[in-house]
Amino acid sequence: MPFTTEIQPGVHQETPKATRGFVLNHSMLRVKDPQVALDFYTGVMGMRLLRKLDFPEMRFSLYFLAKLEGETAPEDVGERTAWTFSQRSILELTHNWGTESDPDFRYHDGNAQPQGFGHICFAVPDLDAAVAWFDEKGVTFVKRPDQGKMKDVAFIKDPDGYWIEIVQPDKLTALGL
Amino acid sequence: MPFTTEIQPGVHQETPKATRGFVLNHSMLRVKDPQVALDFYTGVMGMRLLRKLDFPEMRFSLYFLAKLEGETAPEDVGERTAWTFSQRSILELTHNWGTESDPDFRYHDGNAQPQGFGHICFAVPDLDAAVAWFDEKGVTFVKRPDQGKMKDVAFIKDPDGYWIEIVQPDKLTALGL
Repeated sequence: MPFTTEIQPGVHQETPKATRGFVLNHSMLRVKDPQVALDFYTGVMGMRLLRKLDFPEMRFSLYFLAKLEGETAPEDVGERTAWTFSQRSILELTHNWGTESDPDFRYHDGNAQPQGFGHICFAVPDLDAAVAWFDEKGVTFVKRPDQGKMKDVAFIKDPDGYWIEIVQPDKLTALGL
Repeated sequence: MPFTTEIQPGVHQETPKATRGFVLNHSMLRVKDPQVALDFYTGVMGMRLLRKLDFPEMRFSLYFLAKLEGETAPEDVGERTAWTFSQRSILELTHNWGTESDPDFRYHDGNAQPQGFGHICFAVPDLDAAVAWFDEKGVTFVKRPDQGKMKDVAFIKDPDGYWIEIVQPDKLTALGL
């Protein structure tokens, strides 16, 4: 099957058979206050909460969200768990109970030192409309599309300070990328 | 349209119209040595390198990978950029030039203090087979499926020390989740 990929040092051109059916399902971010985070990810980013899992003995809860377009998730909770873990681009938010009531508590965004994780990214159909929407919702920008060296790429912050890149895919092609 | 979701404080049940077409496209992790990281993500996890973008003035390169099953990416590089940014579950690896030759350099995994980002997760069709495959490839485990409180959930490390959760979706339902 013809597949266009880039040849770079380290890259295996053949996909190992043992990885058939592997799906990159989710990224997990810890959040201080789930009510604030859920308000943002459902009310501003338009995600749906697929599943909440509580672990009382370990005093944490997990929230699984997805940006869906038209798909419907199974009603049965067990089936919904399996379905959630079979999707792509799920966002998992972890809440360690009690952090929301500690005024000094905050998580590390990965961009200040020590660095590691950088950001999540949403593609949007219309960058200008998305920026206007984020302004309407009072979202904090790290970088607006016209700032910095990377034109037409924006970064906003979620309530915990994690960076979210915002791009309009066809504009990147126009930039020569 | 019937959509089963969870009702929790903060959750908006109505998806804002302004978010129509938003797609959670990728998560970005910084890596010390792209050759080592690409060997792992293509040779062990079975991902494909869709696009490499170089930014010589800023001395970094970006690598966009996906675990694809059957899909083919456009041959034209510009179209491939737009296509890559329209997909779900892309992994972006950022390489700041020079880190690979500094023996003391390492990135922060987000699970040691200060905490923030936790992990990415791959769903697999057969957890036992996946564990055997990772053992064959000499992958480091944070937690094997039979260790700890969460049975049937494994965590491995990528070459930079980032955690990767490994789950078999139907086993989670069997756990009562």
